[in-house]
Order: sequence, then structure tokens, then C-alpha cells
Amino acid sequence: MNLKIAVLSGDGIGPEVILQAKKALYAVGVVYEHDFIFEDALIGAIAIDKTGSSLPEQTLNLCLNTDAVLLGAIGDPKYGIDAAANVRPEQGLLKLRKELGLFANIRPLKPFKGLLDVSPLKREIVEGVDFVIYRELTAGIYFGEKKLNESGTIASDLCEYTEDEITRIAHLAFQSAQKRRKKLTLVDMANVLESSRLWRNVVKKISADYPDVALDFLFADNAAKQIVTNPKQFDVVLTGNLFGDILSDEASVITASIGVLASVSIGEKHVLFEPVHGSYPHAKGRNIANPFAAILSAAMLLEYFGLTEEAKKVYEGVEKAIEYNVVTIDLNPDTKFGTNEVGEFVSNFI
Amino acid sequence: MNLKIAVLSGDGIGPEVILQAKKALYAVGVVYEHDFIFEDALIGAIAIDKTGSSLPEQTLNLCLNTDAVLLGAIGDPKYGIDAAANVRPEQGLLKLRKELGLFANIRPLKPFKGLLDVSPLKREIVEGVDFVIYRELTAGIYFGEKKLNESGTIASDLCEYTEDEITRIAHLAFQSAQKRRKKLTLVDMANVLESSRLWRNVVKKISADYPDVALDFLFADNAAKQIVTNPKQFDVVLTGNLFGDILSDEASVITASIGVLASVSIGEKHVLFEPVHGSYPHAKGRNIANPFAAILSAAMLLEYFGLTEEAKKVYEGVEKAIEYNVVTIDLNPDTKFGTNEVGEFVSNFI
Ligand SMILES: CC(C)[C@H](C(=O)O)[C@@H](O)C(=O)O
Ligand SMILES: CC(C)[C@H](C(=O)O)[C@@H](O)C(=O)O
Repeated sequence: MNLKIAVLSGDGIGPEVILQAKKALYAVGVVYEHDFIFEDALIGAIAIDKTGSSLPEQTLNLCLNTDAVLLGAIGDPKYGIDAAANVRPEQGLLKLRKELGLFANIRPLKPFKGLLDVSPLKREIVEGVDFVIYRELTAGIYFGEKKLNESGTIASDLCEYTEDEITRIAHLAFQSAQKRRKKLTLVDMANVLESSRLWRNVVKKISADYPDVALDFLFADNAAKQIVTNPKQFDVVLTGNLFGDILSDEASVITASIGVLASVSIGEKHVLFEPVHGSYPHAKGRNIANPFAAILSAAMLLEYFGLTEEAKKVYEGVEKAIEYNVVTIDLNPDTKFGTNEVGEFVSNFI
Repeated sequence: MNLKIAVLSGDGIGPEVILQAKKALYAVGVVYEHDFIFEDALIGAIAIDKTGSSLPEQTLNLCLNTDAVLLGAIGDPKYGIDAAANVRPEQGLLKLRKELGLFANIRPLKPFKGLLDVSPLKREIVEGVDFVIYRELTAGIYFGEKKLNESGTIASDLCEYTEDEITRIAHLAFQSAQKRRKKLTLVDMANVLESSRLWRNVVKKISADYPDVALDFLFADNAAKQIVTNPKQFDVVLTGNLFGDILSDEASVITASIGVLASVSIGEKHVLFEPVHGSYPHAKGRNIANPFAAILSAAMLLEYFGLTEEAKKVYEGVEKAIEYNVVTIDLNPDTKFGTNEVGEFVSNFI
């Protein structure tokens, strides 16, 4: 298979972990005879430094014309929240999601056997957990109208959803549930929010098309509790942009470290893979960042393009590394291994 | 001391647990010679049943003219999210908060020693945790303009904050930090939301008045993770209405059960005490609901009115009950005790 992959390493530890993901993909290419062509481009703080924009035209054009995007992380303390939108790293990512139409962000949560005891949660809570979060990614309060009055004393953000925006991700989530344990949980705040009531009504309507999937509802406050008290109840969790952001970061504790969480963002025409973690500027260049999330993002990419066996191999490489305790410091405080060694182990395994 | 207390038992397990709180207050009144006058009033589903409104005029008037309000819980499945606002139990509570001007909801999070092992979190995570959440309660997306277009395909909620709304709760939070470990963490989403940027700017400005308090910032997604991975870092957490709702429910897992969490809501002129838990309709009338949260809400009431010794006594009563394992089923699956017996134990102790 031929795949053209835009690689947006971004800021902080982004380049280090993405390098390991590339190594894994390269190894897969050699062993299984695929042609992966990587094209690097700028995003985030580094893009601001070099071009003045957090999402340069060139990067966007490249992403619009590749098979897939592989992203590292964005964000640097030197571009704070007070800077203009164009020179805030996260705005580059938000714009990229919007321009590529990546309306669904999908994060699987299934702890590795070898890491069950690393979680802050008790083993009996995390053992056997296996669910996936579908977070709406290009609408809601993230993208609604923002206002600040002239005197700077009143500020607002609009949380708006349309039936279409809910419909398209709901179908994806239901289809996923059909292939899994056939349960879908909608997380909203329909007791308080009008937009949440629309979510509920639309999702209820769509559920008629999926009679084999059991649908239930949870308010976001309760969901935040359930995720750490009884995560085994979940199969597919569907939710809006803001709740999805908060709950998926929270849910990362189930997997011991946010450093092992990968995600894929899907649109009609484009697809982007990225680790869930951020840019961790303080860890940059120290060879301590966990490359698993980036490597597993590469595995998701393979899976997405139907290279199931290859994806499995990468996943097994990570499992083996964990088994042999070839892990970074977030997973083992006494480790002798860094980003490079761990990444090397996985690509050698492949 | 003479205190007139409006008692709004509400729905589900509300009446059962509030009865135990009243018993505790009654015992305190007898032992320490105070005159607590309870006046009952309707709120929630039961109020809808009897008067057609979830917050009858009479209830509101009573609350406006008492020293304090003690609330149980509201909510009943028979009044779903599709009903008109006036016949949705939670709207009664939201309206009450607004009318009484209860702009700050305060939830202390300090696990009982005897319950450290009941939490889903590991003991080393929860041991020694001691923080308090200040949640803004009468503004933000809960109270912003709600819209649904005519065809029912576009819905929105406005999240708006003014400098004044942020200022008044920020002062309370800073003052609390001064009396504690002198650290305040603002939780927002200033990387994405305009209203969050206002929160940040206002809180930064106010922090100049409290040079002895260290101020730091956390994005809400990261906060959701930190609360379960490293809750010891927190002293006072300040946040908006929606984030506060989600994070304080999540944080309840630190204390083993939401059934032991009390809260106070404060305004310029009024004050309301309520357990953090909901109405649990399925537990209603079964003598299994945990009365600790309601009893501890009563202890907060005593504390608020300067009856420190009395408050301590109630708190000790709960501690003793836990020590002797006189607890409800949420804290001990093999318990022989129910709501009544546990409440009885505490009031006898007093
Ligand atoms: C950087 C930020 C805008 C982003 C988000 O909140 O969407 C990040 O937290 C994420 O979850 O991918
Ligand atoms: C019932 C509901 C409106 C309420 C809220 O979200 O404020 C409750 O969850 C709470 O936290 O007190």
C-alpha cells in the first residue's frame, strides 16, 4: 500500500515522540512492503516562530492533499492565552480540525494488562475496562461566537449545536457500538442546557436505526464520577466537544498514564492521528517523554487503512515493551530507558 | 442562639436524610441550649405534584425570610427533561439559587480517616487530601440565554460572565485560602473560551489584594485528571458554574462516597446548606440512604453561625459512627444499619 502522510510534529515533546512513531511505521513498511511517504510541515508555536502563523497555508494545503495527518503536540508557554488568536498555538490546531472537517475525535480506553497497577485507581476498578469515547470536535462552545464588551467587563461564549452536527457523529458512534458490545451512552447536561436537549432528541431519533444498540443517558457531572467509580459499564460514550475534552482527559487515568493514549479524528474526507497528551515543554529534549501514545496513534492509522495485521504487530510491540519493562519514567520511576530506547525496542520488535 | 431554618426536604431520599439532620440539630439544641425553629416547605417534584410549580411562591418567601435554608434533594424521573421549565424539579433549585443570590457553592473535600480504603482511588492518592471547591453558582452557561430555532434543529446556550460575578466569589475564595494553606487554583479553559480569559484576568487582578496567597491556573481538562491523580496539590479551587459542577462531582470519589459530602451556598444575604448527592428515587423509602451528607450539612450550618464547638461535636458523631462501622450500605456492603440507625447513632452521640 502507498500512503502519503503529513507529519506535523509541533512543539515540546511532539518531535521526539513522532520520531518514534515514524520509526515504527518505517519498520512496518519494510517488513510488510508498504510505501509510506512522510511530508513534514509546521504547526503550533514552532510555526509561529518560523512563519508568524500557528497554521501556515502551506501546512493546511499539505494536510488537505494527503491520505492522513500524524500530529505530535502543540503549545509553548511563550505564547500565552493573552496573545492574538493567530499567534496562539492551540488556535492552529482548532483551525486545522475545522478546515479538515474532523468532526469526530475517537479515543479508545483499554488499559494494558501490564499497567493495571500503575493507575491511581484500584486494580478492581480498571481491570477489564474497554470503552471508546466519541467526542464531537468541530462545533459547540469551542467554535461558537466569542464576545468581549468594549470595557472588557463582560465576556461570553456561545455553545451551539445543529441537528446535522449531532447526526453525523451519532451515526459513527452507533456503528461502532454495533461492532462492539452494543451499548451507547450519551453524556450531556440535558437537565440544564438547551443544546444538550437537542443532543438527546437527535440521538434518540437516530437510535431507531440501530435497534440492536442499547442507548442510555448520563449527565456530565454524574459521568465524571462514573468514569472513575465504574468505568466497566461503558462501551461507547458519545458526547459534545467540551464534555468530551474534560471526560477523555479524566478517563486517561484508567490507562495509567496519558502517555499511552492515542486518538483519531475523522471527517468526511480527512483523518488525523494524534497522541492525547500535550507538548510538555519542560520535558522537551530530555529523552523522557513516553512515545507509546504516538506509536499507538500510528497503529490506529494502520488499522484505519485496513492494515489490521500490521496494526496488531505495532500494538504487540508496545505490549512487549511493557512486559519487559522497557518503558519511560511516567510508567516506572526507576526506569533506565528513555524515549529513544523505548521507541527503538518497538521498531526492532516489528 | 435562636435560628429560624427553612427545611426543604424535596424529593426521593431527601426527606429521609434531612430528618436525620434535623435530629442532629435538635440534639445540639437540647445539649447546648439553642432554639432551632424548623419551617418546612415544598420544592422539586413534590412541589409540582402539590402546587404545580417546582418552586412555589410560599417556599421562596419563606427562604427569603429565614436565617438559613436546609435542602434535601430534588428530582424525580416522572418529570423528565422534556417537560416545561416550571415543571422540571431542577429548575426550582436553579431559580431558588438565583433568587436568593447564592453565588458561591462551597464543597470541602477531606476524606474521613476511617474511609480511606473505600475510595476507588488508591490510599496513597487520597490520604492527606484537604481542599475546598468554590463553584460560581448563579451565572455562566446555566443561566445564559437559551435558544431553539423554530424547526427545532439548532439549539444554543450562552456562557456569559461579568467582572462583578467573578469578583465577588474570587474574594471569598482568596479569603478562604488565607485561612488555609494559602494556595488558590483557578480552573478554566482560557486556551479556548473568552469567558475563561475574563476569569483569568479578573482573578489575577484581585490576587494583588492577597499577596500571601499563591495563585495558579489549570485548564479544566487537566484539572479533571489532576483531581484523581494528585488531589493533594489543591488547597482552594475556584471555578465557574459548569466546571464546578463536573469537577466537584468527580472529586467526590476522594471521599469514598458522594453520600458523605456536604455543601454550603452563600450569597450577600442568604445561605443554603445541602448534601451534594441527588434524590436517588430508587432508594427512596428503603432506609438505605446515607444520612452523613445531610448531617454534615447541618454541621456546616452550625459552623457558619459561629457554633464551632457544636459543629465539631456533630462532625465527631459522624467520625465515631464510621469508627464503629455504623454506616449505610454505600460505605459497607455488609452493613446491618440503615439511614435511621446511623442518624440515631449520631444524635445519641451528641
Ligand atoms: C489544545 C486544546 C485546544 C485541545 C482541546 O481542548 O481540544 C486539547 O486539550 C485536546 O483535547 O486535544
Ligand atoms: C440538579 C442540578 C441542576 C444541579 C447542578 O448541576 O447545579 C446539581 O447537579 C448540583 O450540582 O447541585
